[in-house]
Amino acid sequence: MSPLFTLTTDYGTASPYPAQVKAVLLSAIPDARIVDVTHEVPAFDVRAGALILEAAVPWFPREAVHVAVVDPGVGTGRRGLVVIDPEGRRLVGPDNGLLTPFLGHGARIRAIAERGGVIPSPRSATFHGRDLFAPAAGYLARGGTPGALGPEVNDPVRLAVPVARREGEALLGEVLGADPFGNLITSIRESDLGGAVPVKVDVGGRAARFVRAFGDGERGELLALVGSSGRIEIALREASAAASLGGRGLLVRLVLGPAASA
Amino acid sequence: MSPLFTLTTDYGTASPYPAQVKAVLLSAIPDARIVDVTHEVPAFDVRAGALILEAAVPWFPREAVHVAVVDPGVGTGRRGLVVIDPEGRRLVGPDNGLLTPFLGHGARIRAIAERGGVIPSPRSATFHGRDLFAPAAGYLARGGTPGALGPEVNDPVRLAVPVARREGEALLGEVLGADPFGNLITSIRESDLGGAVPVKVDVGGRAARFVRAFGDGERGELLALVGSSGRIEIALREASAAASLGGRGLLVRLVLGPAASA
Amino acid sequence: MSPLFTLTTDYGTASPYPAQVKAVLLSAIPDARIVDVTHEVPAFDVRAGALILEAAVPWFPREAVHVAVVDPGVGTGRRGLVVIDPEGRRLVGPDNGLLTPFLGHGARIRAIAERGGVIPSPRSATFHGRDLFAPAAGYLARGGTPGALGPEVNDPVRLAVPVARREGEALLGEVLGADPFGNLITSIRESDLGGAVPVKVDVGGRAARFVRAFGDGERGELLALVGSSGRIEIALREASAAASLGGRGLLVRLVLGPAASA
Repeated sequence: MSPLFTLTTDYGTASPYPAQVKAVLLSAIPDARIVDVTHEVPAFDVRAGALILEAAVPWFPREAVHVAVVDPGVGTGRRGLVVIDPEGRRLVGPDNGLLTPFLGHGARIRAIAERGGVIPSPRSATFHGRDLFAPAAGYLARGGTPGALGPEVNDPVRLAVPVARREGEALLGEVLGADPFGNLITSIRESDLGGAVPVKVDVGGRAARFVRAFGDGERGELLALVGSSGRIEIALREASAAASLGGRGLLVRLVLGPAASA
Repeated sequence: MSPLFTLTTDYGTASPYPAQVKAVLLSAIPDARIVDVTHEVPAFDVRAGALILEAAVPWFPREAVHVAVVDPGVGTGRRGLVVIDPEGRRLVGPDNGLLTPFLGHGARIRAIAERGGVIPSPRSATFHGRDLFAPAAGYLARGGTPGALGPEVNDPVRLAVPVARREGEALLGEVLGADPFGNLITSIRESDLGGAVPVKVDVGGRAARFVRAFGDGERGELLALVGSSGRIEIALREASAAASLGGRGLLVRLVLGPAASA
Repeated sequence: MSPLFTLTTDYGTASPYPAQVKAVLLSAIPDARIVDVTHEVPAFDVRAGALILEAAVPWFPREAVHVAVVDPGVGTGRRGLVVIDPEGRRLVGPDNGLLTPFLGHGARIRAIAERGGVIPSPRSATFHGRDLFAPAAGYLARGGTPGALGPEVNDPVRLAVPVARREGEALLGEVLGADPFGNLITSIRESDLGGAVPVKVDVGGRAARFVRAFGDGERGELLALVGSSGRIEIALREASAAASLGGRGLLVRLVLGPAASA
């Protein structure tokens, strides 16, 4: 099957930049399959980009090469990376924390040499998605050795990713971001519940009810549920919780009942 | 030729959800051709989604499988449907009226069994586009029998779709929605004109002139014309009629002249 | 390799119109590869569309056929064009200046006959992207002769494109538009610098510093740099220069230092 690429950037759907990246990929690999994850990561928001990558990348066939670019430091000293995560997934992007969800124990990481390496020196200091990362992704997809791209990296930039904290019968977490519906995605994972069902939910001082699906709530009622990426989400039925409550950093507290029998 | 899919959702281009649906399709069918109709249906707006499907779906090759998801009731009791419309077009989506334009006389409809059927039980209660509809679409595209998906449905949810009403020499209708230019799409179809040309047009109490093309109007002049989907549209030249007049529900009245000879 | 098309329009990602164009292409050429440049050209803004085409088109393989539609005059007398630019690139779109970057000396231009030609007469007077330009693009991609599409055109509509003006040691130009980051794209090209480095930059009365990359600036500091399309851009680090300064027409003045030795 022909090589598969995904693109996740903050370039904006209105810009010609995603098309330029695709043109470079198609020039190198005419039968490339290219899927846009999104080009609407909020500009410069590395943290939001990481959350989107975490949600999307694991669903793709393992052979895909994922190009991720939210890169305010482009053209400065920051390195470009190729990551092969512990599951064998391949990602290409800047060394600024964007790839954090894939930098777990066992990840193999290489810097992409910008001079004298297998990738030609970038033509611009402002658009490495087109000039460095897409060529590196094409190189990988054609079977190129990651090791030839550049030196091994043992100290990649990692975002401090908030995780849930246990406090007696409660789980404490925070809102990491919102999706376009305004559903708030939190740092508490389904696995943190340990099979228990939350009996009380508090979000920034407001009570929410734990339900199974968005439609299980009443209109105007604040809801908490297990979202589709395995994180606890805060939602309003057919409305935007983000517009009503705000977003990133909002504190979330779940009081757990007894664990359900499986 | 490889299977062809279209996607029409309210997920938002900024979300990772369309990519997850595509990942599922590509995992099942590596050479799938996937066309986004749009992921910018206004959130939860089943009626707007139906209007977009009506405009887009008929243009695709008959073998396409169309996945449509505007689904505020996901995870509650509402059924998931596979529809084969009277023309043989195949659609997959929730049973909430979204598929109304394809539920005419002769449509064959099946519910998608969520337990014990040919499609694995959905992993989430919040994302059936990924967990139920995409797998069902893949099943159909690979030649699977609709009948094996689940029981026949004779009572699908249908939206009450406004149609034009004749009143003497006049046709009465209403605005159904707007496109991104702000052109207002009405319930009056070209075929309702019966070959006659409107000699007077009234939109929410304002007069409009019937023209052939947007550029036939003067700037600032309210226009009516036959839009590209065969519906009468209300427009302003190089401006947004929706911003100026409002949208859905606005009354439209055409007074017809004598029928033109063909 | 299968035919490659790009689409650049102001239809809006929220509309069903891009999908209809793709449906027509896929009906004619089932294995068509189709890349969206963007469907978010500001509505009716021919000048912004030309700037996006200039940035995107040259990156694609030469065999691509580029469909470009920003077309307020659709259905009136304006001609539809097929252009083969001096580099052999093929474009299809309205004769309203949108294709100006490709109309240089040596371009071959044909009007697309709307009656009695090789392309069936358009079904609508409002959607030539679907009804005229896509069929013409498909005709070209299948090896059809441009000459059979319609008469030669020697007087295409050309936008007056602002170019940089030399005044002593200074280069004068203006802002042509902004990208989604709010970076301002100017009429001054890297080649206008003749190897010299700007030592002073003035943008609408405000001083900017010439740097190599966005990240070389301080936060809040106005920057000028060579953008990825070879034009001088005005930027703010991790912020929008357009929101701060305004956009099109803003005057830009560079004072050049001595030419750097190569």
